[in-house]
Amino acid sequence: MKKTTKKDIMNALRQVMDPELHRSVVDLNMVRDLSLSDGKVAFTLALTIPECPLRDQLAEDSRIAVQALPGVQEVQVTLGAMTEEERHTVLGTKAQPALAVANNQVKRVIAIMSGKGGVGKSLVTGLVATALKRAGYSVGILDADITGPSIPKLFGVHGPPKGSETGIEPVQSRTGIKMMSINFLLPDEGQAVIWRGPMISSAIQQFWGDVQWDTLDYLLVDLPPGTSDAALTVMQSLPIHGILMVTTPQSLANMIVRKAVTMAQSVNVPIIGVIENMAGFVAPDTGKRYDIFGPSHADEVAALAGAPVLAQLPIDPQVAALCDAGKIEEITRSELDGIIAVLEAAAGPTVDKKEKLP
Amino acid sequence: MKKTTKKDIMNALRQVMDPELHRSVVDLNMVRDLSLSDGKVAFTLALTIPECPLRDQLAEDSRIAVQALPGVQEVQVTLGAMTEEERHTVLGTKAQPALAVANNQVKRVIAIMSGKGGVGKSLVTGLVATALKRAGYSVGILDADITGPSIPKLFGVHGPPKGSETGIEPVQSRTGIKMMSINFLLPDEGQAVIWRGPMISSAIQQFWGDVQWDTLDYLLVDLPPGTSDAALTVMQSLPIHGILMVTTPQSLANMIVRKAVTMAQSVNVPIIGVIENMAGFVAPDTGKRYDIFGPSHADEVAALAGAPVLAQLPIDPQVAALCDAGKIEEITRSELDGIIAVLEAAAGPTVDKKEKLP
Repeated sequence: MKKTTKKDIMNALRQVMDPELHRSVVDLNMVRDLSLSDGKVAFTLALTIPECPLRDQLAEDSRIAVQALPGVQEVQVTLGAMTEEERHTVLGTKAQPALAVANNQVKRVIAIMSGKGGVGKSLVTGLVATALKRAGYSVGILDADITGPSIPKLFGVHGPPKGSETGIEPVQSRTGIKMMSINFLLPDEGQAVIWRGPMISSAIQQFWGDVQWDTLDYLLVDLPPGTSDAALTVMQSLPIHGILMVTTPQSLANMIVRKAVTMAQSVNVPIIGVIENMAGFVAPDTGKRYDIFGPSHADEVAALAGAPVLAQLPIDPQVAALCDAGKIEEITRSELDGIIAVLEAAAGPTVDKKEKLP
Repeated sequence: MKKTTKKDIMNALRQVMDPELHRSVVDLNMVRDLSLSDGKVAFTLALTIPECPLRDQLAEDSRIAVQALPGVQEVQVTLGAMTEEERHTVLGTKAQPALAVANNQVKRVIAIMSGKGGVGKSLVTGLVATALKRAGYSVGILDADITGPSIPKLFGVHGPPKGSETGIEPVQSRTGIKMMSINFLLPDEGQAVIWRGPMISSAIQQFWGDVQWDTLDYLLVDLPPGTSDAALTVMQSLPIHGILMVTTPQSLANMIVRKAVTMAQSVNVPIIGVIENMAGFVAPDTGKRYDIFGPSHADEVAALAGAPVLAQLPIDPQVAALCDAGKIEEITRSELDGIIAVLEAAAGPTVDKKEKLP
């Protein structure tokens, strides 16, 4: 068993986030007087605000993170406090939010959602963005899937984005679709983003408020699976015009997509339509169709969502190959032709984003 | 446009969670003096601990939730404080944690993970559980996917589970696999669980500590996609013996599974092996094989994970049909035969869960 070093301990503590400041206890320079001998670890956590009732949670999170290291028998965490000056330094370095939002003019924000993972939200986002772009609109994609971002890979684009005093410049695809994704900011695309909810929410808000989207006809927001922090933050902080709900023929997916529909309804965001992905496989040699994931349930989801089925996309190995090659913009799916008109005609006024963000 | 009522406002505020107590501001009886006239909303938030620096976040979350309602022009949130007695009542009603954990004897805890959604984590969890059960072991499944739980549907089982003073009794499948899932606790399986991270973590800890697993040879933990709260909580609070990593042939999935691998490595949880799902489709009529999601990348994931490829499962419409019918226990996959021996032989001591939970 590998022996734990002080460096290992600091690395473990890098995973422990201050729940208010959304930065790790190591980044915040809170870990002091670290000692390690015979499997016994001791350190002090210098708190920015010693009165906060969250201090015990922070101490416990830190203790658990270190206790999990090999050979660690005992962990003693002492709570301390920063000096006024230290606190000022730490809090003063916090980024100022919402640099760019005042200059942005985003006419329509559309969220692509499903509740269930792996149904093809990112594929649909990419195909709809491409179709809108071809129709002459200015289009952006906000990749709100912070722990499993797919957009950069589909478009074959890489970061890092350029930054300036007025915000972050989105990365542009070959055809000029503007996009922002956490993967543009990582040194290695395989690096894990091990963040709890508040950090996820904070990243999404920055992708909205600190990115120079400038003028966009459509901003598509690619949501991660689930109905937790990312979806909540997008629906509460962004002026979502409507949702495209993605499902697959599996009855299981159907059940979980129902959860996404009930979430959208409970926060009063309208569902524009339902798109069924993986709707059968047509063998390229024989032309025979196989319902490999079962019969369609799109109509049930549509009835529940109170919105029409806009498209059914069969599985196509060529689509998978182009996606894996980062060439989603070369795909043409006639099934999606009708969606542009639906998005153009979708009810409700064009929302000015400044109304909703603090 | 539907007119917003006071009830709508209370419903919107039900989504706003106290970040420390993990309950909504409505449940905590924090919302007072609500008034609504001409699109202007005002209310007081009575804080349990008025000094907490999180109060501004709570006020802001509440403001945003209400602001999003149709017709609301202005939201005024005043911060107040509960009386000593009110606070006592609110805090006193909090459930006591970890009722059952002292009596449980779980010999091995195996997490099924992938980072990416929709690759078949739940399918693999169900198939491995079934194989272990057939081999004579006592088996449990902890469904850690709180916002997209799939386990109950695959096994065709329903809640609610029975409760007693010493904890919650797991629901048993037809063959006697014990399981706990959030869907057992919901009145309708399509109901959304709109919770931020701390609530997700709290639910998972209760599924571990408050459920009467009694004696189990294996507890399989079905993780949701991503590397955020659920995965972190499972890895930090449960004595995970090892991880089965699930992937698919898509290069995109491969990239995101790499994130899960780096997360597992960063928290020092060993990866036992890699299982590739959706590894091609064999047409039932012609026997011809189609790589509909592209060629396999399992070896790359395995090299990165430092663990062997344990199985490659092709797409099988019969498997999909049995899963949708809640009959996963009737499926036999010879590809999984070798996994039992690997799990039996997996290195490392049997961990006593009481060592790790606080």
